Amino acid sequence: MVDLVVLGSVGYDSIKTPFGSADNVLGGAATYASIAASFFAKPGVVAVVGEDFSGMDKFLSRNISTDGIKIVKGMTFRWSGYYEYDMNEARTVETQMNVFEGFSPALPESYKKAKSVFLGNIDPGLQLSVLKQMRPELVVADTMNYWIENRRDALFDVIKKSTIFLLNDGEARQLFSTTSLAAAGKKILSLGAKAAVIKKGEHGVLLFTDSSVFMLPGYPLENVVDPTGAGDSFGGALSGCLLKNGLSEQSLRKAVVYGSAVASFSVEDFGTSNLERITMSDIERRYREFEAMIRF
Amino acid sequence: MVDLVVLGSVGYDSIKTPFGSADNVLGGAATYASIAASFFAKPGVVAVVGEDFSGMDKFLSRNISTDGIKIVKGMTFRWSGYYEYDMNEARTVETQMNVFEGFSPALPESYKKAKSVFLGNIDPGLQLSVLKQMRPELVVADTMNYWIENRRDALFDVIKKSTIFLLNDGEARQLFSTTSLAAAGKKILSLGAKAAVIKKGEHGVLLFTDSSVFMLPGYPLENVVDPTGAGDSFGGALSGCLLKNGLSEQSLRKAVVYGSAVASFSVEDFGTSNLERITMSDIERRYREFEAMIRF
Repeated sequence: MVDLVVLGSVGYDSIKTPFGSADNVLGGAATYASIAASFFAKPGVVAVVGEDFSGMDKFLSRNISTDGIKIVKGMTFRWSGYYEYDMNEARTVETQMNVFEGFSPALPESYKKAKSVFLGNIDPGLQLSVLKQMRPELVVADTMNYWIENRRDALFDVIKKSTIFLLNDGEARQLFSTTSLAAAGKKILSLGAKAAVIKKGEHGVLLFTDSSVFMLPGYPLENVVDPTGAGDSFGGALSGCLLKNGLSEQSLRKAVVYGSAVASFSVEDFGTSNLERITMSDIERRYREFEAMIRF
Repeated sequence: MVDLVVLGSVGYDSIKTPFGSADNVLGGAATYASIAASFFAKPGVVAVVGEDFSGMDKFLSRNISTDGIKIVKGMTFRWSGYYEYDMNEARTVETQMNVFEGFSPALPESYKKAKSVFLGNIDPGLQLSVLKQMRPELVVADTMNYWIENRRDALFDVIKKSTIFLLNDGEARQLFSTTSLAAAGKKILSLGAKAAVIKKGEHGVLLFTDSSVFMLPGYPLENVVDPTGAGDSFGGALSGCLLKNGLSEQSLRKAVVYGSAVASFSVEDFGTSNLERITMSDIERRYREFEAMIRF
């Protein structure tokens, strides 16, 4: 039984960093998020791919449902980009939407009763359309600057319907025209989300709820190889973790830590390689390291 | 009895930010650091000012010794600069060294027995010259990019002689040609410092010792008015706090939190205005807020 629906892109990435490169590796928000979530939940992916797609096994081997991945005529989504020494910012060389143009998600029956959904970074119109096809108790939604600039109204609808809304620090400032992340977090809550999560890359995460603020620094990695998908991995792991532990303040905080632990592994190799390599005990070890490193 | 010697500039700052401006306010590393330290210790400032200086009362009224502030012919040090929306980076318009040109610090007898010293951001040659005149148990030293570029060898001598060496994230990366703050922290320890503290502005602080890493996020302020002197306030409060509580791992971590609390107040108004307004109970309250916001 799928208990977490994961919407987002599935495609191929070509990535350059100061430390190396990778061509045509399996990527996309739904790929990272579902693999990250699979440590905690039984995810089912909603996406579209072309006839050239050969990555289904990566999902199936992790017990991730691919029933919601539609295969259509044409080429799979492709992204290429690079990072400079400041690995916090991806620079896009090319985005080929390909089969994502005109994609209209239709949830398989087996997904419709899932208790939770992770709406990965994608057109907010598609996020809303998935929401209409199910009655989830938990809605975690992510976005990016492109939708802030081009689909602002639909994006506000998504925020209103979210239990937890995620975005990164630059986007939070842009969305609410403020320099203050604390002010941006409050705005998200005032729109109706139960929690706002602001992702700051290597600088960690802020979690805002009506009753408190939680701050987690980033895991201090010595070698960041490829930041692609870190935010998606975070969101997927957080969603899976909440599904297991509920929505108390304590559970939200724990989910942020587990999400950060999984994301920190994700960036230690290109693509999803390291996420595929680690086990739950690696994640638990990093969780305990976080505990030791923030105590005073 | 002075128990903490504070070396650094004392002068007048003119500051512009997107939210306002202040002209000719009392500033300089030693000013911020000694006021911040005065909550925990009895500081004595080592600096030089010109005949135009009229700020002695600000120190004396806080029980900060000015015996080490030399008054000489000429004009006091002046700095003018501005911040854009990213308040993490100060942009210098003009630095008038004035009486700091040719300054050679001579410690008053009453300072020489002090157990600790904060070597604020200043020419590392001056930092070394102050060290030679005393036998402190605790040496906390700060620096900035200018000295990394122009006085590298002397700066390495300072690091070797430091108990705790502070610098900001960009400077840490620059000093050791690495993108990894964890790697930079280890390098500082390998040079002989007992602890390395990397200041990340609004993103908080990293503390590296041989046995562990401590990470503290920044206090989530809604309104940052003027970041000038935040790092100096942090360093001064940290030094004062350590003097009181010793150098155990736990004491180091607590000092980082107190330093961050004091620095967070400092940036809420122009110059030292807010530091002069707050009381120890305000600082204790923010310390407890940190505790509540990082717990999971």
